[in-house]
Amino acid sequence: MSQPIEATASRAPVEFYFDFTSPYGYLASEKIDALAARYDRRVKWRPFLMGVALKATGAGILTRIPLKGEYALRDFARSARFLDVPYTQPANFPLATMQAARAYYWLHDQDCETARTFAHTLYRGYFIDGRDISDPEVVLELAARHGADRATLAAALNDAPLKERLKAECEAAIAKGVFGSPYFIVDDEPFFGVDRLPQLERWLASGGF
Amino acid sequence: MSQPIEATASRAPVEFYFDFTSPYGYLASEKIDALAARYDRRVKWRPFLMGVALKATGAGILTRIPLKGEYALRDFARSARFLDVPYTQPANFPLATMQAARAYYWLHDQDCETARTFAHTLYRGYFIDGRDISDPEVVLELAARHGADRATLAAALNDAPLKERLKAECEAAIAKGVFGSPYFIVDDEPFFGVDRLPQLERWLASGGF
Repeated sequence: MSQPIEATASRAPVEFYFDFTSPYGYLASEKIDALAARYDRRVKWRPFLMGVALKATGAGILTRIPLKGEYALRDFARSARFLDVPYTQPANFPLATMQAARAYYWLHDQDCETARTFAHTLYRGYFIDGRDISDPEVVLELAARHGADRATLAAALNDAPLKERLKAECEAAIAKGVFGSPYFIVDDEPFFGVDRLPQLERWLASGGF
Repeated sequence: MSQPIEATASRAPVEFYFDFTSPYGYLASEKIDALAARYDRRVKWRPFLMGVALKATGAGILTRIPLKGEYALRDFARSARFLDVPYTQPANFPLATMQAARAYYWLHDQDCETARTFAHTLYRGYFIDGRDISDPEVVLELAARHGADRATLAAALNDAPLKERLKAECEAAIAKGVFGSPYFIVDDEPFFGVDRLPQLERWLASGGF
């Protein structure tokens, strides 16, 4: 006999949308795989460009908003300490992440596990070591550590197919209602923000609440 | 010998800023007193008008923002279930809260404990029973339950001193950096959002982290 449909469906992966320049996305990236694994779920990592979502919602760049901006800088660092994740506010913040995201999808289409460890390398490079991950040279250097052929990736980054691929991913994210980073979807239930991980966890534990 | 200065200072109340039309403010109002009491702290309740803060940050009304608005309505109800607080999304949302806030301060200046129970009555009236707390008649009815003289309060609501009082409270809140509801200040450390209560609790437990 086959498994009950519900049991099979319950193993759908957690969708994780994030932008490589998002501090809360970085914090979530250090937690989400282990959290999901406790409930026998995998995680689908989907970098996108927050700028596209900001256009849809009319929101500005968080750290440049009066009152909120100053608070945000403090909250990034405090939330990192709260979650026990190393964090150093980058001087160059926020930055453009299309090259980083394109490189992610290029690697992903060869080996999704390698792409995930590359995503960690990008996030940690930016939020721990202060690397300028908007610079294609930096992206290539970090990708090479994960076995990417530098020349091939350098050419791909500026070719139409990879540009189109990222554009399509951003459009798909917006179509699903994604408006910020991190944003999670669990069995059609959306969760926005690293501060929603406790709710997401209860959802996984109890199949909704 | 007198107590060490630090021990005395550590008993400063938690400041709790909120707007009576804020769902997350309502959820926080059901939790903050008990949370603070676990660490031998009292809470100073300070209603203000979010509209003033929204002007400062340029933010719009959450539920009317594309993508974010639909998510927010779902998140209000789910966060209430997560925190085990009764919640019904009011049809009239958001609404103007200056009469409610003025009545709060009028009661507060007579008896701050009564004002606090009145604040619960306003919040629960709106978010459980769907009462229109923008209506001065409703505000008067609810205040009368707490012993307020209806005619005296009705006159005070439209007199300059109480209007000025609320205006000064709003200006003081903005001057402290308050930009949304709920917003807490613990020993100069700001916390924004009901989802920051776990961080606020760790702060109280450990004197900062």
